[in-house]
Amino acid sequence: MKIQQNSFEYKESFHLLNGGSIPGFELVYETYGELNPNKNNAVLVCHAFSGSHRAAGVDKETDKPGWWNEFIGPNKAIDTNKYFVVSPNNLGSCYGSTGPATLNPATKKPFGKDFPLLDVYDWVASQNLLRKSLDIQSWEMVLGGSLGGMQALEWSISFPENIKKAGIIAATSLISSQNIALNQVARDIIRKDINFEDGDYLIANKKPRDGLRVARMLGHITYLSESNFKNRFGRKLQDINNKIDSSINFEVENYLRYQGEKFSEYFDANSYILLTKIMDSFNPAGRYNDNLVDALRHCKAKLLILSFDDDWLFPTEYSKELHFAAIMAGINSSFIELSGNNGHDSFLYANEEYVSAISNFLNHA
Amino acid sequence: MKIQQNSFEYKESFHLLNGGSIPGFELVYETYGELNPNKNNAVLVCHAFSGSHRAAGVDKETDKPGWWNEFIGPNKAIDTNKYFVVSPNNLGSCYGSTGPATLNPATKKPFGKDFPLLDVYDWVASQNLLRKSLDIQSWEMVLGGSLGGMQALEWSISFPENIKKAGIIAATSLISSQNIALNQVARDIIRKDINFEDGDYLIANKKPRDGLRVARMLGHITYLSESNFKNRFGRKLQDINNKIDSSINFEVENYLRYQGEKFSEYFDANSYILLTKIMDSFNPAGRYNDNLVDALRHCKAKLLILSFDDDWLFPTEYSKELHFAAIMAGINSSFIELSGNNGHDSFLYANEEYVSAISNFLNHA
Repeated sequence: MKIQQNSFEYKESFHLLNGGSIPGFELVYETYGELNPNKNNAVLVCHAFSGSHRAAGVDKETDKPGWWNEFIGPNKAIDTNKYFVVSPNNLGSCYGSTGPATLNPATKKPFGKDFPLLDVYDWVASQNLLRKSLDIQSWEMVLGGSLGGMQALEWSISFPENIKKAGIIAATSLISSQNIALNQVARDIIRKDINFEDGDYLIANKKPRDGLRVARMLGHITYLSESNFKNRFGRKLQDINNKIDSSINFEVENYLRYQGEKFSEYFDANSYILLTKIMDSFNPAGRYNDNLVDALRHCKAKLLILSFDDDWLFPTEYSKELHFAAIMAGINSSFIELSGNNGHDSFLYANEEYVSAISNFLNHA
Repeated sequence: MKIQQNSFEYKESFHLLNGGSIPGFELVYETYGELNPNKNNAVLVCHAFSGSHRAAGVDKETDKPGWWNEFIGPNKAIDTNKYFVVSPNNLGSCYGSTGPATLNPATKKPFGKDFPLLDVYDWVASQNLLRKSLDIQSWEMVLGGSLGGMQALEWSISFPENIKKAGIIAATSLISSQNIALNQVARDIIRKDINFEDGDYLIANKKPRDGLRVARMLGHITYLSESNFKNRFGRKLQDINNKIDSSINFEVENYLRYQGEKFSEYFDANSYILLTKIMDSFNPAGRYNDNLVDALRHCKAKLLILSFDDDWLFPTEYSKELHFAAIMAGINSSFIELSGNNGHDSFLYANEEYVSAISNFLNHA
């Protein structure tokens, strides 16, 4: 599989949905496979909250596979012998694309907490500029899980001429007040870290690692399901020789803290706050008087709406509501609930049904 | 209704289930109604996580009703014309009974983080000493919601000769690894507060209020249900003039932060950590090779096991498991699921069915 790492630079002022602008931006992205001469085999893959442009292949240095490597590659669900896959890192994230940790050209300091609040629409608009730069008229499909699925939905509503199919996986058109509340707790945890410095930690050469770690632990709980926790950890006590911290009693505590610590080494705290805010305010029907059916009337793509039965962050019921709204809007929509073993994170793991659902839709629908 | 405020002092060394001891203790408690001459009309009410001995009546200074005032009083579910209700504040809590904020007689400083890890068994054993001091042979009923229900269960297993009926409401015999994980996040939030001082904040004359506030916000999310959040807040934006903090966008965020701030004014951080640990390790079957049926064979009380359909902290399934174990153990157990509107917190709010379930069981079962 041909893998290319690229960067797209947009040098004009980029106006944002919520008002305001950024003075140009950079999107880093990877591509897998090759664009055909007719340029009609391109698939856009959108990452979730803490994902990156590294969706496929295996990193030579770290030996770490891309987050959707099980799905993208030769003879996989998105077959790179046939399709050209484009995977950008989103604005506001921290893997190379313009975000809070980027230097603000006006001040020569990192944007930090002054990075403007983006909307999922802005992500999609920036991806649309990337599409134009690649001279692709229309994506064969745009897809992703969780926040990635929300981008696929936004694409189908806001750029209907440039997308043929959308895969909206483990996603929703609107997050619940419970989700908002959990995101707020995560933000408060980070902001109260002694090293947060009111968002200016980079300038102070500090890092709010404890806050990031604990916020990630909370997130992690919501990404998995209770049955997954039960099967993996139950109530096993942590082996005393492998305890990270003497205050730990149960294996589940040790696991979460370890995962949180790893995460806190590389993720940016302002990005974490910004991305939760983007999730909170996602509402593609907002520009249509909050009427999702009216919003979906603009869509011309075929939709595949996919949920997992053990996802408690964005349960099946949300996907069904979206599917019914699509039907009411008279568009071609197909819904499937799969059984998952990893809660909300089930969208990351391949199994035969899941792979078939995606490849059938991409190739035959 | 006759209300009395009392204190029970135990002046001998009190040995704990996990080993170790405390050099005596004080339990503050309230009583409602009057003990009859035969001393066979006593009901013990056990409070939940952040509850206190103030279960009934209305505080004259603050105008605040007791946490179960809707259930305890003349002609209420627990009729104080007939029953004598005893409501202690648990060891390790912070409303007057011996706990982390109490002075350690050996050091003349607050116990703080050195307060030993208690078990629910120790709570019940201390309540049993209170029972003896009141010269009551047997409680007519012991009941409570959440951690209160766990105490009622522990009573029925560990002191079978001194309890006739147990009301185990919105409770479980064992919390899940997901619950443990959420408790761990709460503990980590508190411990990372800049004013926590490794647990010695009282000695340093500080208070980890931010940590307590955010931990409580997380707890609050788990006590309510998603449908409750949806009905109360939906995705309403907060009126800008009433924002506590400019980072707040949604009404639900403002509500949680306000509630968390109030809580952080009066609750003790070491108590919070201790109580979550007590909840994590609760396992009345632990002394019976983790066999709950074997544990329940010791029980002589009649059990009322009550759950709420919208409780996601301790869902109905947990109550059913307990009920089946009781049936397998050959004891008299009755199970009822009620519809709730307040998630896990539904156990606090009276409605006709709930009140009838308790009063029928208490008076006729």
